[in-house]
Order: sequence, then C-alpha cells, then structure tokens
Amino acid sequence: MSILKIIEILAILVGAFSGFIEARSKRMDVVGVFTVAFITAFGGGTLRDILLDKRPLFWVTHQEYAILIFLLSLVAAPAIRTLRKIISERLIVVADAFGLALFSIAGVAEAIDAGMPIFIASMMGVITGIFGGILRDIVCNEIPMVLRDGRPYAICSFGGCWAYLLMLQAGIPADFALWSSALLIVGARLLTWWRGVKLQ
Amino acid sequence: MSILKIIEILAILVGAFSGFIEARSKRMDVVGVFTVAFITAFGGGTLRDILLDKRPLFWVTHQEYAILIFLLSLVAAPAIRTLRKIISERLIVVADAFGLALFSIAGVAEAIDAGMPIFIASMMGVITGIFGGILRDIVCNEIPMVLRDGRPYAICSFGGCWAYLLMLQAGIPADFALWSSALLIVGARLLTWWRGVKLQ
Amino acid sequence: MSILKIIEILAILVGAFSGFIEARSKRMDVVGVFTVAFITAFGGGTLRDILLDKRPLFWVTHQEYAILIFLLSLVAAPAIRTLRKIISERLIVVADAFGLALFSIAGVAEAIDAGMPIFIASMMGVITGIFGGILRDIVCNEIPMVLRDGRPYAICSFGGCWAYLLMLQAGIPADFALWSSALLIVGARLLTWWRGVKLQ
Repeated sequence: MSILKIIEILAILVGAFSGFIEARSKRMDVVGVFTVAFITAFGGGTLRDILLDKRPLFWVTHQEYAILIFLLSLVAAPAIRTLRKIISERLIVVADAFGLALFSIAGVAEAIDAGMPIFIASMMGVITGIFGGILRDIVCNEIPMVLRDGRPYAICSFGGCWAYLLMLQAGIPADFALWSSALLIVGARLLTWWRGVKLQ
Repeated sequence: MSILKIIEILAILVGAFSGFIEARSKRMDVVGVFTVAFITAFGGGTLRDILLDKRPLFWVTHQEYAILIFLLSLVAAPAIRTLRKIISERLIVVADAFGLALFSIAGVAEAIDAGMPIFIASMMGVITGIFGGILRDIVCNEIPMVLRDGRPYAICSFGGCWAYLLMLQAGIPADFALWSSALLIVGARLLTWWRGVKLQ
Repeated sequence: MSILKIIEILAILVGAFSGFIEARSKRMDVVGVFTVAFITAFGGGTLRDILLDKRPLFWVTHQEYAILIFLLSLVAAPAIRTLRKIISERLIVVADAFGLALFSIAGVAEAIDAGMPIFIASMMGVITGIFGGILRDIVCNEIPMVLRDGRPYAICSFGGCWAYLLMLQAGIPADFALWSSALLIVGARLLTWWRGVKLQ
C-alpha cells in the first residue's frame, strides 16, 4: 500500500472522527453520527466535484470508505468517550493538518486537470480542504468554526495551493510540487497552531 | 390513476405539509412557507439526482407538483391552524411513513438504474427518503430532527432498501420487491413509533 | 463598458457587501468574510446552474469577479465601520433592488434558454435572485431573512419574472422585455419598501 493511500485513508478517518465528536456532543443518535461523519469526510470533495461537474464521485467509486465509516459509526457512539481519552487533541490536530494538506492539493490538482483558471483552481483546493468541516457545522447548527476562530487554517491551505500552482508553472515536476506544497500546508498549520497565531 | 401515482402525490403533499407547519412555527411569511414546503417535498430527490448527475429533475418534468405546492402555500398560511385540528398527528405519521417508504425505494431503484454499487445505492435510497426533512430543518435553523430524536426512521428506510436490493439479487421480480420492501418500511416505522422504540 | 455590465458588477458588489456586513456582525475572520461574501454574491446563480446542470459556472469563466471579492475581503475587515458610515442604508436598498432585478431576469432568461417549462423558469429566476442571501444566512446560522421578514422581496422578483415571460409569449422583443421587467422589479421593491408594505 502506497504512502499516499495511507495518508488518504487517515485523512478520511480524521474527518469522520471529528464528525463523530461533534455529532455526539449534539446528542445525535447513530444515524446522525454516521451522516455527520460522512459529510465531514466527503463533503469538501463532493462539493468540488459538483461544482466541476465531475462524476462519479470519489465515494461512489470507492464504496469501501463509505462502508468503513458506516461500520465505525456503529461502534463510535459507545466508544467515543474512550476514544477521546486515547486520542489526544495534539494527535487530532496533527492528523487533521495532514488531511487538510492532502485534500487541498488533491483538490487543486483535480481542478487544474478539469481546465479551471488558476485562481479558481486555488479556490477549489481550499473548498476541498475546508468544506467538509463547514458542512458538518451547518448540519450541527453552528457557525462554521473555520470561518470565525481566527486560526490560520483555510489560509494555510490557500498558501499551499498557490505554492503548488507556482511550482507547476515554473516547470517543477508535479510529484515534487505535490509533496512539497502538501508539507508546506502541514508545516504552516502546525507552526501557527503551536505559536497561537491569530488572524483578524 | 394508478395507486403508485396516488401514493406519490400523497408523499409530496405530506412533505409539503410538514414544511408548512415548520415554516409557520418559525413565523415565516408566504415566501418562506412555499420555499420550505418545496425543499421538504423535493429536497431529497433533488440531492440524489445532483449526486447521480441525473437531469432533468423530477419537479422540472412535473411542474404541476411545483404549481400545486405554490397554490397550497397561498392558502396554507391562514389555514394552518384549522388544518392542524382536522389532521391528527397519527394521520401525519402514517402518511409520512408511506412517503418515506416510497421515496426510499424509488431512490434505491434510480440509483441501481444509474449503475451505482450496492452500498451506495442503499445510501441513495436513504438520502432520497430523509434529506427533504434534513434540508427543511437546516433552513429553519434547527438541528435536523431525524439525526437526533433517536426514533428508527432512517434505519427503517435503510432496512427496506436492503430488503429491496437483496430481493433483486435473489431474482425476485422487481415489482414484488418494490412493493414488499416499501411495505416493510411502512410497517417498521409505524411499529417502532407505536412501541416508542428508541436508538442510542 | 455597457450599462448591463456596470449593473452586473454593482449587483455582485452589493451581494458581497451584504456578506461582509453579516460576516463581521458574526465576528468572523477574514476567511469567513471572503467565504460569506462569495456565497452571497454567487450562491443564487451557482445553485441555478447546478439545478440546470449548466457548466462552466459564471464565476469560473469570470474569475476576475472572484479575485475582486478576494481583494475586497482583505480590506473589508478593517474598513467595514467606515464603509457603513459612508454608505447609507437607503443606498444599499436601492443597489440591492437593482441586483435582485438583474439576477432574477438573468436567471429566468437562462432557464428559458435551457428549455425549462414556464413555471419552473419563473422559479429559477427567483432562486437566482434570492438564494445568495438565503445561503449567506444559513452559513451565518440565521433563519433566512427573506423567508420571514414579510417584506415583498421574492414576490417582486416573481412578479417581474412573470412579466418577462408573458412579454416573451406576447412576441415583445426580448431586449425590451428584459429591461422593462427588471425595472418593474426595482420599482416594486423600492415602492413596497418605502411604503412599509408587509405580507402575512
């Protein structure tokens, strides 16, 4: 199994896990837990594909991920208290930073493939990275965290997407551009988190 | 007029009616009443068709349903108090159970037609059945009822969709599979409602 | 630059501006300000194009508008207090009435082009005109203003769309139909606003 595949599964699991936590904190039942986890994990990529008119959707061609989240939902409800003890906040932030990076760069690469102009492609990267969480918060009746907590999150994604786009323009091999800009997002997110940087 | 057609119209009317009630309880005006009723009646099927990339949408080819909800909205605002007296909660639950069943099985059948893998098809059935109500609650600024009240609702739909899929796999005629699994959903919903069954 | 182009840009700016104000009143950061402004300006047209399955989206072929809103978002956060002093509420209502009119008639014209039946086309006009604001309010965790404040807003759009459709049916030149029905929307909106007309 490739390292990309492992990070991809990890990113989806992290998305689902943050959905589990928010759904449980709203006292949702097992149906709510699955729905919110699914929307968090796949919402960003699905919105991007709808905007690009790309089908089939990722989770349609890879139904194993949907089944995985379904099975996890069945055990998540009773296990969430235990899980939150085992999995520290730090681990969640780190895994989520990898998820943000991977989703964002995958999103911008897809948009370039689909012939989008460059600024729109960078937006599609950010949408893929952050809209899972935005849709999760809308379903849970909250103002989306990412739009108001002032932490550099979408901006890390945006910066990484532009690093990727500029490297492509400069003729740097796509593979190197992909990995270095993804690492840039991870680094920027973790550094600003750790230093407590706030935007206005 | 076929029995299927009658149930279909009834399902749409029930969806619209639950939209009327929620919109009025939020003190919405006539525009809000129509919008919320429309979203409740057609939101699930529209979301499914967008995910499947299927056009034209149901309410586009059948604009008579949109016009019907429009006309009902004009009279619903003053009439809602009277209607709630005439129409008991029990009647609403029964009609809504038929709506859930019909929308769910229609949704799973459409998804199979569109070549979806089997687990995704069952999800599309549930989405068709329950997302009208979820979108209604999001527009009305509520945490969606179906995700948190612990009543077996989505799960009845899910079970019925799988009954349908398994019957198809077993070579049972599509017509019989459709009707018996729809009745299964109705039965499961009404029985669990009547017994007060709760999920975790 | 044509007068239509100027009104179009004005309409988008007005949409973005109402997004800026609502995002700031919710204490959102710069990412939230951009996201909400973008959704308000383009949400209605984007939803219409998704329902019609029309691509590429308006803001994809015109990325200059997206860039403009992005740049404005960077300065909007500190400037919003000053802007609200310079720009009176009356000016916002007037500009917004032109935006509603332009978006609505553009929406109904697109829908007719796409072969929609007549009632659905009128709905598409209204959706284009009002859903930017509805999505803005959903993201900001409010019950959408347009659905509950009882002011004739969607109804002005609806009336104008039908005026346009009936003029087309009557063989009146499309250009004249477009401009006179847009002015009808502007007039109806401003007159009912000024007279304080309320719906039930």
